[in-house]
Amino acid sequence: MFKKETYIERRSALKKAVGSGVLLFFGNEECGMNYEDNTYEFRQDSSFLYYFGLPYAGLTAVIDIDNDCDIIFGDELTIDQIVWMGTLPTLAEQAEQAGVTKTLPCNLCVKFLQTAMINGQHIHFLPPYRAEHREKLACWLGFPPSKYGGSEAFIKAVVAQRNHKSAEEIAEIERACNITADMHIEAMRFLQPGMKEYQVAAKIQEVAYSAGARLSFPTIATINGQTLHNHYHGNTAREGGMMLIDAGAELDNGYCGDMSSTFPVGKKFSAQQKTIYDIQVASHLAAVAALKPGVPFEKIYDLSAQVICEGMKSLGMMHGDMAAAVQAGAHALFFPCGLGHMMGLDVHDMENLGEVWVGYDGKPKSTQFGRKSLRLARHLEEGFVLTIEPGIYFIPELIDLWAAEKRFAEFINYDEVKKFKTFGGIRNEEDYLITATGARRLGKKIPLITDEVEALR
Amino acid sequence: MFKKETYIERRSALKKAVGSGVLLFFGNEECGMNYEDNTYEFRQDSSFLYYFGLPYAGLTAVIDIDNDCDIIFGDELTIDQIVWMGTLPTLAEQAEQAGVTKTLPCNLCVKFLQTAMINGQHIHFLPPYRAEHREKLACWLGFPPSKYGGSEAFIKAVVAQRNHKSAEEIAEIERACNITADMHIEAMRFLQPGMKEYQVAAKIQEVAYSAGARLSFPTIATINGQTLHNHYHGNTAREGGMMLIDAGAELDNGYCGDMSSTFPVGKKFSAQQKTIYDIQVASHLAAVAALKPGVPFEKIYDLSAQVICEGMKSLGMMHGDMAAAVQAGAHALFFPCGLGHMMGLDVHDMENLGEVWVGYDGKPKSTQFGRKSLRLARHLEEGFVLTIEPGIYFIPELIDLWAAEKRFAEFINYDEVKKFKTFGGIRNEEDYLITATGARRLGKKIPLITDEVEALR
Repeated sequence: MFKKETYIERRSALKKAVGSGVLLFFGNEECGMNYEDNTYEFRQDSSFLYYFGLPYAGLTAVIDIDNDCDIIFGDELTIDQIVWMGTLPTLAEQAEQAGVTKTLPCNLCVKFLQTAMINGQHIHFLPPYRAEHREKLACWLGFPPSKYGGSEAFIKAVVAQRNHKSAEEIAEIERACNITADMHIEAMRFLQPGMKEYQVAAKIQEVAYSAGARLSFPTIATINGQTLHNHYHGNTAREGGMMLIDAGAELDNGYCGDMSSTFPVGKKFSAQQKTIYDIQVASHLAAVAALKPGVPFEKIYDLSAQVICEGMKSLGMMHGDMAAAVQAGAHALFFPCGLGHMMGLDVHDMENLGEVWVGYDGKPKSTQFGRKSLRLARHLEEGFVLTIEPGIYFIPELIDLWAAEKRFAEFINYDEVKKFKTFGGIRNEEDYLITATGARRLGKKIPLITDEVEALR
Repeated sequence: MFKKETYIERRSALKKAVGSGVLLFFGNEECGMNYEDNTYEFRQDSSFLYYFGLPYAGLTAVIDIDNDCDIIFGDELTIDQIVWMGTLPTLAEQAEQAGVTKTLPCNLCVKFLQTAMINGQHIHFLPPYRAEHREKLACWLGFPPSKYGGSEAFIKAVVAQRNHKSAEEIAEIERACNITADMHIEAMRFLQPGMKEYQVAAKIQEVAYSAGARLSFPTIATINGQTLHNHYHGNTAREGGMMLIDAGAELDNGYCGDMSSTFPVGKKFSAQQKTIYDIQVASHLAAVAALKPGVPFEKIYDLSAQVICEGMKSLGMMHGDMAAAVQAGAHALFFPCGLGHMMGLDVHDMENLGEVWVGYDGKPKSTQFGRKSLRLARHLEEGFVLTIEPGIYFIPELIDLWAAEKRFAEFINYDEVKKFKTFGGIRNEEDYLITATGARRLGKKIPLITDEVEALR
């Protein structure tokens, strides 16, 4: 946790931004895997962490703006819980760490909220993303599912604060990024032909946990890089193929890293692999060079997509005006995802609050295939932390679908594309802080250009 | 998965046992950690695995006994899902693996259940253990929380089947136990004074994942073994202390292992540590020797507790008749938990169905501190798989509480006990199959007696 003044200041700014009512924060509960007491590794809600810092299950917090009062609801441990699970600070001690002086037992939370509603106070809450949150909205407040959208004023105020990272947050994110880089560097050193994907995933996970961290999201370690979020780890890595890793560390305070790397299973890339890889790197570097405050991130996405299209054109897979191809959406055959996303206390920061608020500043998103997956489009501002991760993917199902429809035949030469149908996919990803004049990479560098990668293999 | 005949036979036996109505199986859903799409590692419900085998999220199954019809409800993947997550077998192909010929889209499940209710069919379900299950009971069936207990007939029939492990299940459990043993042996080899607990936990986890398995429960790797389920990993292991590990592997089909070990942080146990350790081993071996069909497990628990008490008496910490001390509950100062539990598709097998049915055959549980934590008490039967895990724990908070109350002063010498207040805790745990004539340990042996342990350190 940060010092308590950090949380006090964050809550004070939030109160001013929302103006009135009661702000309700559901701290997360334990979640049973296959029975109630066999729980997943506990993950606190990120907005709860941001405003209250406490990483314990079973807490609820309110900020009563109208009465200028912050309360944490929770229960003290019983002797049975101490015998089984060990001691924790008392609730009052926990609250003190967050700069909160008022604590109450859990069973008074519903009464508090219902009294506030009777008194005409508006109960603001953030959109639920777990069944437990929806259950509380239904049981505590009597809200039907149609009212689960959350409070727009609350969402916008939280997004405005959390999108701008403070110096103490950036230091934590960089710590997570350094562990993240170590995970990738170790994977590059470790992989040998004949290994199973799960051996690589296990090694990456060990690097995170042995640094006192955990995973910020389920590791991707796949020989089938063309599947964007492939969590299957049962394949064997063979000489001649490539391994795509997308993995990140998360600190115990919730701050994240998120990087990707692609490298040959053998010592060297093949000539064909190097050709496509170099196009991905050119797209990546063009995007990084364009990062600075005031630039709309969607323009950088267009730029990175155009570099990929020009590369495809040079190989005979596309033809025509590549800027027009990108506006039409033809690039999405190879690059069907976004260029990057905000990162902080969540690896996709505040995804639960809605990409339209976090990444689009309230503007509507495109519905075009590919462009609709762009999580971030808004003008960049100093203090934003984001990922850069263009990719080139040859997805057999998508190639077959588009080829059958002759989709974008004015830009795409399907006969040439089909020669790459079993190529796989390439992605590299780094994390950047937008500074006053440009951008700074967060965390150690992982090998990016082919010479650097092959040197480590 | 097993061959489809296994699932067909299991369902057929279940239909006969329950007799009438509709049996509803909630397959588990993905659960978001900090937003909906950042999910925990998926864990299918174990009864769903037992009767249908399919390890995928988003499925619901029914066995309509009255109309002799099994149905799996699920949805096919969209092209967007294939691009992001990769392909899966079609729903019909999945169902075929489980020997089910009828599949329907998810949105027809509610209609099916409501029609069945209108037709007067009883909807049997198992007790919910996730908020998502409760949400479905409320939204699909309109059931209030007072009706969430589940169907006793359904529970009893499932317990009767799952408590007796078949040869093909035992082979899988033994595979999980072998990986589990490797996790412990590697930890014993790996630990060095000065290491953090999380480094040991990370290594244990790597052994499981690099064997293609996962963890059957959150690893305990602690220098504070006196806390029974201590998941904090931030302490440093120091020469002179002990490390207690409780960890197990789970295969992708759900079958589990669960073992514990305790070893010195340095090369050797201290004389005091060896004295207590030897008492734990004597209790452990006495319990193992007593395992055979027909014996009430609670008697074996009494035996293991009495061995511990005799040991404590020999050290001056207890006095009087130790059999009487165990019946009174005085042993629970040192041994406040059970002796073991059923193990199978869950590490505490079917804990979600209720220990009274699984471990007590419907008989009521004791409310005595210590004895109430005994998860298994019933007469043993061939085919049961269970853990043996007596422990000796010096819990400062519990010692202080009981000493202040002079609880069981007729058996306990608190002045002597207090000399061990900072000793810590010791547990060793193995997994056994009850055979026709006795019991067989499952999985490789991990070092148990002090000479074996020190040889590996």
